[in-house]
Amino acid sequence: MQHNRDVYLQEMPLEDAWARLRVALAEAGRDAPLAGEEVLLAEALGRVTAAPVWALLSSPHYHACAMDGYAVRAEDTHGASDAHPARLALESQAAPVDTGDPLPSWADAVLMVEHVQQAGEHILLRAPAARWQHVRAVGEDIVATELLLPANHLLRPVDLGAAAGAGHAQLLVRRKPRVAIIPTGDELIPPGQPPQPGEIVEYNSLILSAQVRAWGGEPLCWPIVRDDLEALVAAVAEAATQADLVLVNAGSSAGRGDFTSRIVEQLGELLVHGINVRPGHPVVIGMIGTERVPLIGVPGYPVSATLTAELFVEPLLRHWLGLPAPQRPTLEAHITRKLLSPAGDEELVRVVVGRVGERTIAAPLSRGAGTLTSLVRADGLVRIPRFLEGVNAGERVTVHLYRAPYEIEHTLLAIGSHDLLLDLLAQTLAEGADPRRLVSAHAGSLGGLTALARGEAHLAGSHLLDPETGEYNLSYIRRYLPETPVRVVTLTRREQGFIVAPGNPQRITGLADLTRPDVVYVNRQRGAGTRVLLDYGLAQAGITAEQVQGYTREEVTHLAVAAAVATGLADCGLGIRGAAAALGLDFVPYTWERYDLIIPRAYWESKLLAPLRDVLHSPGFRQAAAALPGYDPTDMGDEIVPRLSRSHI
Amino acid sequence: MQHNRDVYLQEMPLEDAWARLRVALAEAGRDAPLAGEEVLLAEALGRVTAAPVWALLSSPHYHACAMDGYAVRAEDTHGASDAHPARLALESQAAPVDTGDPLPSWADAVLMVEHVQQAGEHILLRAPAARWQHVRAVGEDIVATELLLPANHLLRPVDLGAAAGAGHAQLLVRRKPRVAIIPTGDELIPPGQPPQPGEIVEYNSLILSAQVRAWGGEPLCWPIVRDDLEALVAAVAEAATQADLVLVNAGSSAGRGDFTSRIVEQLGELLVHGINVRPGHPVVIGMIGTERVPLIGVPGYPVSATLTAELFVEPLLRHWLGLPAPQRPTLEAHITRKLLSPAGDEELVRVVVGRVGERTIAAPLSRGAGTLTSLVRADGLVRIPRFLEGVNAGERVTVHLYRAPYEIEHTLLAIGSHDLLLDLLAQTLAEGADPRRLVSAHAGSLGGLTALARGEAHLAGSHLLDPETGEYNLSYIRRYLPETPVRVVTLTRREQGFIVAPGNPQRITGLADLTRPDVVYVNRQRGAGTRVLLDYGLAQAGITAEQVQGYTREEVTHLAVAAAVATGLADCGLGIRGAAAALGLDFVPYTWERYDLIIPRAYWESKLLAPLRDVLHSPGFRQAAAALPGYDPTDMGDEIVPRLSRSHI
Repeated sequence: MQHNRDVYLQEMPLEDAWARLRVALAEAGRDAPLAGEEVLLAEALGRVTAAPVWALLSSPHYHACAMDGYAVRAEDTHGASDAHPARLALESQAAPVDTGDPLPSWADAVLMVEHVQQAGEHILLRAPAARWQHVRAVGEDIVATELLLPANHLLRPVDLGAAAGAGHAQLLVRRKPRVAIIPTGDELIPPGQPPQPGEIVEYNSLILSAQVRAWGGEPLCWPIVRDDLEALVAAVAEAATQADLVLVNAGSSAGRGDFTSRIVEQLGELLVHGINVRPGHPVVIGMIGTERVPLIGVPGYPVSATLTAELFVEPLLRHWLGLPAPQRPTLEAHITRKLLSPAGDEELVRVVVGRVGERTIAAPLSRGAGTLTSLVRADGLVRIPRFLEGVNAGERVTVHLYRAPYEIEHTLLAIGSHDLLLDLLAQTLAEGADPRRLVSAHAGSLGGLTALARGEAHLAGSHLLDPETGEYNLSYIRRYLPETPVRVVTLTRREQGFIVAPGNPQRITGLADLTRPDVVYVNRQRGAGTRVLLDYGLAQAGITAEQVQGYTREEVTHLAVAAAVATGLADCGLGIRGAAAALGLDFVPYTWERYDLIIPRAYWESKLLAPLRDVLHSPGFRQAAAALPGYDPTDMGDEIVPRLSRSHI
Repeated sequence: MQHNRDVYLQEMPLEDAWARLRVALAEAGRDAPLAGEEVLLAEALGRVTAAPVWALLSSPHYHACAMDGYAVRAEDTHGASDAHPARLALESQAAPVDTGDPLPSWADAVLMVEHVQQAGEHILLRAPAARWQHVRAVGEDIVATELLLPANHLLRPVDLGAAAGAGHAQLLVRRKPRVAIIPTGDELIPPGQPPQPGEIVEYNSLILSAQVRAWGGEPLCWPIVRDDLEALVAAVAEAATQADLVLVNAGSSAGRGDFTSRIVEQLGELLVHGINVRPGHPVVIGMIGTERVPLIGVPGYPVSATLTAELFVEPLLRHWLGLPAPQRPTLEAHITRKLLSPAGDEELVRVVVGRVGERTIAAPLSRGAGTLTSLVRADGLVRIPRFLEGVNAGERVTVHLYRAPYEIEHTLLAIGSHDLLLDLLAQTLAEGADPRRLVSAHAGSLGGLTALARGEAHLAGSHLLDPETGEYNLSYIRRYLPETPVRVVTLTRREQGFIVAPGNPQRITGLADLTRPDVVYVNRQRGAGTRVLLDYGLAQAGITAEQVQGYTREEVTHLAVAAAVATGLADCGLGIRGAAAALGLDFVPYTWERYDLIIPRAYWESKLLAPLRDVLHSPGFRQAAAALPGYDPTDMGDEIVPRLSRSHI
C-alpha cells in the first residue's frame, strides 16, 4: 500500500492566513461588499441595505390632526376662559376631526374633544388654543430627501415601517453570499440511518449550512463526495461556478484522504496549508477556477470545523454583506485550571462561565477536537495567544461569550460527583418560572469539595463514605472546607452495584470476583465517591489494587463506565443502577448510599439558588426521581445537621 | 353627526394589564408553552426544543482511531527506545489507520505516523505506546441515553450537529405561535402607491409581522379592513379560528374609529381598555371566541404600535415558545435633559447613547408617538416609572438597549447645528474600515456648544456669526467653553439664502421683503446659527422682529423650514441651498458662511475619532461634498487656530 501523506509545511498564524486571503481576494476583485438586489419590504427583515435609503415622501405628507376633536382657527379662540367661554359654530368654525385626518385648509389648530362642550350646533371652550397645537405638520417625522437609513444597515422591523412611510415599497439590499458546502469522505453516511463501526454520520454540513444561514448567507449543500480525486475536482470546479465561497469539509488532515490541497493546486492557487490554531490546525485556503473563487478546506473534526467557520467564514460573509467584523460580548473571568498550550499555537479553550459570589469563574471543558458536546455546553471561548504557553489557575482571562451576559448571571455551577439526577434537575430548573441554568462539571466528589473551597462552584454533589465512621460526606467537609459554612442537603439515596454485560455471563456476584484472572474491571477516577466506595470495600475484604485487573483504567462518569462494559473494553465496573439500565446492561447490587449536595451557606440563601431550594422540596421532582431505577428520594431536601466545627453552623 | 366616543374608563398600569391577561390565559388553558412538532434537523435552526433531547447513539459509537498512523498492541511496544527501537510487522502487529477508522479488535493503541519509521514490511518506533493512546473510546463525546439538550432550548448550529451525531434525524420543537394581524381604518392604503392627503400608508402590519417573525412566531396578515363594525367582527372572528393571538391595529384611540373594544365585547370578554404607559396608552386586551383566543388592540401610531408589541406580544410569544422573558442588555447613563412625565403614567423615552470621555450619555429623542424615525434612531429606551414625575438633567438612568454595547462604544455623538453634510459624513464613517456610528442631534449651534461644555457630545457643528467681529464661532467658544481646550475644524463653506416657492412668486429678493404684509416667514429656533444670521441681518437693516410675520414660528432643521415653504405654511425662510434643492424649491442667495466642527482636544486626538480625522482629509469625501449644491469644501479639514484664551491652546 502506497502512503501519500502531505505534511503541513507552511503552517502559519491566523493573522498571516487572513492577510494572504485578503490580498488574494483583492487581486481577484472579491474584496468589496456584494452588489445589491431589490426586495419587497415584507422580505427585507434581516437583510442589509446596499445603498443609503433616502426618504421619497415626507411623513406626515400632509398637515395632520394629532388628536380626536375639532379643527379650529386659533384666532377664533382668543380670550376664551371659564368666565367667558368661546362659542364656535360647528362646520364653519369647528370641524369634527379624528386623529390622522387632514387639517382643513382654513384651520390652524386642533382642540381635544375632552376640552370642549358640545351645545347644539356650537361648541364651547374655556381656554384659548395656540396656533398649530395638536397638528402634525408635514415632515414632522421625516422630510422627503432626508437620509432615512445608511448603507450597510441590518434591517429591523421598525426600519421596514419607516421605509414604507417614506414612500418605499422595496429596498436595495446586499445579495446573500452563496456558500457551497461539500462534505467528503468514504466513511461518511447521511443522518437518519444507524451507522456501522467505521461509518460516521455526516453532520458537519448541517452545522456549516446553519452557520452560513445564521450569518446571512445562502448555503448550497452538495451530497457526500467519496475520496476520489477526480470526483472531488469535478464537484469543486462545479461549485466554484455557482458560489462566492467553496467549503470542502474533511480531507484536510494529513491522512490518506487529504485531497483538498491537491484539488486547490490543480484548480488554482494554494494560499494556506495549516494554521497555528487549536482546534483548527489543518485548514486549507486557496483561490480556484477562472473566476478565482475562494476555497476553504475545513477540518473534519466537528469542533475544528465549527471554529474554522467562525474564524474565516463569518468574518468573510459579514464583510461581503457590508457589516463590521463579528463582535461577541466579552467578560473577564478567573480560570479554574492551569492550561498548558503548546508554544507556537494559539489555543481556543471552551469554557463554562458562572458568577460565584463576587467572582466570575471560567471552567475549561474538554479540549478534544471531537467532543462536539463541549461546544454545545460552552458559554464561550478563551483565546490563549501563541507563545504564552498557557495560563495559571486563578488567572484572569477574557471570555468571548456565546451567550448573553444575562444567562451567565442566572447560571448555577455544580462541580463534583456525577449523578443522572443532575440532568433531571437541570431540566427542571430550566423550565421553572424563574429559570436557572444548571451547569455541571464532573470532577468527582472530592474535586467538588476542593472547587467549593476555591470559590469556583455554587454547589457540589458528593457521596464520600468515611471508612472510619461509615458516615457520608461530613468528615470530608470538615477536612476540605474548614473555613466555609455550608449546608448539606440530601438529593437522594441511590443504589451502587456492578455493571455487567447482559445476562452477567461471568457470574460476578461481589468484590471477590474482581481478583479473577478472567475479569477485567473498569475503575472511576481518584477522588470519585464510587472509587472511595470500591477502595473501602477492597480494604475490608483484604484485596489489593494490584489484584484487580483494569484497576488503573479510569473513567469519569457512571455512563462512561457502563459504555466501557457495553463495548467489551471491560467486564464490570462499580456504578449506579441507572447507568446500567440506560445501556441495557445488567446490574449486581452492592450497596445503597447517600448522595448529598454541599452548598456554601451564603449561596444556599441567595436569590440565585432560590429556585433550587424550591425544586428540592417540590413533589413533582421527587416523583420524577422515584421513577428512576435505583433511586430512593425519600430524604430529598433534608438538611444534615451534624456535629460540625463551629464555623459550619 | 352622532359621535360615539369611548373613553378609557379603566386605564391601568402595565403590571395590572399583564396580571389580567395572565389570569385569563390560565382560565382558557392557554398559559402553557405550545405543543411540539417534529422537524428535520436542516429546518430546526432557531426553533425551540419542546422536550429534552437524549442521545440515541453514543459518540463515537465505536472505538475510533484519533490520529493518522498505525494501530498497535501497547504491550508490543514496551521497552522501545532510541537505542532499542521496537520493530513491528505490518498488518499483523501494526495496521495503517486514518483518523476515524475503527480500531482493529486486537489493537489497543494508535501511533502517530510522524513517530514511526517504515522499513519494508515493518515499522520502527523509538518510544513505547500507552494503552488507549490516540483512541477515542465509545462514548467519549456522549453516551447513549445522556441528556444532550434540555427542553426550551433555542437551537444553534452546533446543537443540530450534536443531535445528528447522537442519532437524531429530526427534533420535537415548539410549534410557531400564529399571530393574526388585522390592519383597520378607512384612511389606510397599502404601501407602494402615492398617498393623497388624509390617506396613510399602512405599514404597521409590516412592522408587526416582522416583529412576530423575529420573535419566532408566524404572522398571518389580513388585508386592510374598513371602519365597519360588521366587517371587523367578521374578520376578527375568522382570525380567532386560525391564530393563537389576534392583533387588531388602529381603531383603539378614543376616536370614531374605535371599534376594537366593542368587537371584543361582542365576541368575548374585555380585560383591559387603556394602560398608563406612554407611548402606548390606548391598548385594548380581551379574550374572544369559543376558543377564548387572546386579542390585543394595538394603537395606531407607529411608535405606540411597535412598543405595544414589545410590551405584550414579545413576552407572550417567548412564553409560548418556552423561552424566558425577553432581556435586553442594559447600561447606566446620564440623561442630558430634564424629562417631565405626567404623574400616573409610565413613560418609555427613546434615547441615543454614546460614551463621551468617562461618562455614558443618553440623549432623549422625540417623544411623539408618530415619529417612527426616532425609534429607528433610538439606541434604547429609558423607562420612567409612574409617580416619579420625571428625572433631572444629569441624573443616572438605566437604558434598555436595542443595540449591542459594542456599537455604543463606537458611537460619535454630534450635537449642534444641522447640516446635510452630516448625513453624508455618517454614511462615510459607517462604511469605513474601522466603522463609526455618527449620531447627530439637532440643537442649533449654541445648543451644541453648551452640550460640549456639559460633556454630552464629542463634537458640535457650528456656524455662529459674531455680530461684532464678523468672525465665525471663535468668540462664542471663548464665551461658552472657557475651560475646554478645543479644536475648530472647518467642515465646509456653504451658501445661505431664502427658500421660496418654485418660481419665487412673491419676488422675494432680500431681508426687506420680510416686512411685507403678504409675506409669511418661517424662522429657525433660538440658538441656531441661521437664526443668529437672520437677527444680525435684521439689526443691520433696522428691522424689528415684530415687523416680520411668522418670526415666532420656529423649525429646528433646514429641511423643516423648506417643508413649511413647500406646503404653504410659510412663504419663505432662511436656510441652505441644499434644503431648497431637496424639495424642488427656489433659492434666493443671501451669503456664504463657514460651518465648523468644534471638538474638545481630548476627543479629537482619541482613537474613537481617528476615522473622523481621516475622512475630513480624504479626497473622496471632499469630492462628494463639492457635488452638493451650495457647498464649497475647499477649506475642509483646516484647523482654525485663532487668538484663544490660554486654556484653548
